[in-house]
Amino acid sequence: MKIVIGIDVGGTSIKGAAVMENGVILDRFVFPTKKEEKPEVLFDTICEKIVEQMNAKHYEVEGIGIGIPGLINSKEGIVTSSVNLPTWKNFNIVEYVSRKTKLPVLITNDANAAALGEAHFGSGKKYNNIVMVTLGTGVGGGVIIDKKIYDGNEGKGAELGHMVVQVGGRECGCGRRGCLEAYASATGLIASTIEAMEKNPDSKLHEIAKENGKVDAKVAFLAEAKGDKVAKEVVEQYITYLGEGLLNFCNIFRPEAIIISGGVANEGENLFSKLRKYLKDNNYGYKEAPKVEILPSELGYDSGIIGAACLPLFKE
Amino acid sequence: MKIVIGIDVGGTSIKGAAVMENGVILDRFVFPTKKEEKPEVLFDTICEKIVEQMNAKHYEVEGIGIGIPGLINSKEGIVTSSVNLPTWKNFNIVEYVSRKTKLPVLITNDANAAALGEAHFGSGKKYNNIVMVTLGTGVGGGVIIDKKIYDGNEGKGAELGHMVVQVGGRECGCGRRGCLEAYASATGLIASTIEAMEKNPDSKLHEIAKENGKVDAKVAFLAEAKGDKVAKEVVEQYITYLGEGLLNFCNIFRPEAIIISGGVANEGENLFSKLRKYLKDNNYGYKEAPKVEILPSELGYDSGIIGAACLPLFKE
Repeated sequence: MKIVIGIDVGGTSIKGAAVMENGVILDRFVFPTKKEEKPEVLFDTICEKIVEQMNAKHYEVEGIGIGIPGLINSKEGIVTSSVNLPTWKNFNIVEYVSRKTKLPVLITNDANAAALGEAHFGSGKKYNNIVMVTLGTGVGGGVIIDKKIYDGNEGKGAELGHMVVQVGGRECGCGRRGCLEAYASATGLIASTIEAMEKNPDSKLHEIAKENGKVDAKVAFLAEAKGDKVAKEVVEQYITYLGEGLLNFCNIFRPEAIIISGGVANEGENLFSKLRKYLKDNNYGYKEAPKVEILPSELGYDSGIIGAACLPLFKE
Repeated sequence: MKIVIGIDVGGTSIKGAAVMENGVILDRFVFPTKKEEKPEVLFDTICEKIVEQMNAKHYEVEGIGIGIPGLINSKEGIVTSSVNLPTWKNFNIVEYVSRKTKLPVLITNDANAAALGEAHFGSGKKYNNIVMVTLGTGVGGGVIIDKKIYDGNEGKGAELGHMVVQVGGRECGCGRRGCLEAYASATGLIASTIEAMEKNPDSKLHEIAKENGKVDAKVAFLAEAKGDKVAKEVVEQYITYLGEGLLNFCNIFRPEAIIISGGVANEGENLFSKLRKYLKDNNYGYKEAPKVEILPSELGYDSGIIGAACLPLFKE
């Protein structure tokens, strides 16, 4: 059975594992992402670990796949830049890691990796065409067409979070205004919650934020469940923006399924049932379009590792 | 040299031609689109014409490609429905036309056909990945990835005009609100012009509309050129919406070029220079992204016929 290494680079830690061709994870490793450190130094440790693991376990690794948060050129194997990893500038990660490990290396961005993982071993495995949306600090997007990552010219496409859904709207970290990310990310939901709290000192949001210890993405949903009117508006607005974004992806990509992960997706059925209802109620113009399933991620936090491993597992 | 037939179905006429594999058009035909007529009756005439042409000219036709305005299933060869062709309901056009002509038939929607034509023989021929946007009655979109049409599940994807860019905004014919089409189509521009005229009885827009005989997509641009402030605002708003839509397509597809055609594109450099400036000025977050060329269509009204012909010419 084929064995490969999947590596999921994150802002706080770099997680990796040996992954079998059936998607089962064997040996895991995790290293802190030292932000001040050059990526070469971080990968010296990781490559040592990989070589050590291979020698100890006596299995033959066929390749390495790496998912990276940031702007990359997957064809040339270069990390152009990353907001969360300021020292990673024009780093030729493919050349570096393959030289250290003597293994072929493939890269993609982290959202694409997660989408590929779900497409092969998660809730997308029944489908050939999926869109994956991650509702975390930002809104990440991955597009899978015929079981392959679609990432456009130079591998820089499918920045789905930076689709403007409100021209002139809320400022986004990317510099534009009204991006889906500004409304539908956990950060966006928190911003809306805080805005609503400031305007409504009597709302239950205050009490629940206090109980919760902080204003996070859960607070609006918790207060809504307790019947708070202001929280209901915050949640409705959130569902509207996210729902319109997903309808856009339906019209643009016509996927078989949209898979949603990330912090806000932890709301579970409470979020998913609302979203499905919104899409059903507001999809006026596209009733004749093929059905699109709205599904939670199945692999959860492992989607990044497993998805990265899919790069060498399913390369052409 | 390979010869195929390309057919461009429109709301008022059905145009077709024999097209050589170098993109040169040989013999044209055109029939009125009788809206009350069943598509079978229309295609009886067209198929007769094709067979007659083949017999008269003694060339061997290798296949037929058809571009259709509406919701189609390109894989099954069916026209599901079309707003402009109310009698076309679940019409198995591929089966019908290939039975009548004894030729293989392929279909796509009209916007995809135009995009494919530009990608092979028009302003997109240097590029592998393009997005084509048609600014007419509606906003049509075609996405070409690696020189092939991307049309998603069942061939119904890439409805780029129905991407919401203003949640809760202007009503769109599709039933949603705030679609790009509602602002960036010729119809959208006319609506904005009329709105501005109603609010500003002193604007030069009135005088120019009178000279022009009607309020069409040209009026705002003409009045702006004469220094009218209100017209300038209309044009600026138009460029903002269209520009934000194109930036969305850049982030989503990361194409090498965006090709723009349709009535509004007849403004030429006046439109294109404004658009390029908007994209340059507002593309804050994506300065490191690959350059995207913004180009006019080269094939013009023939892009539909030539693009339809590309279906059999470049089929896999």
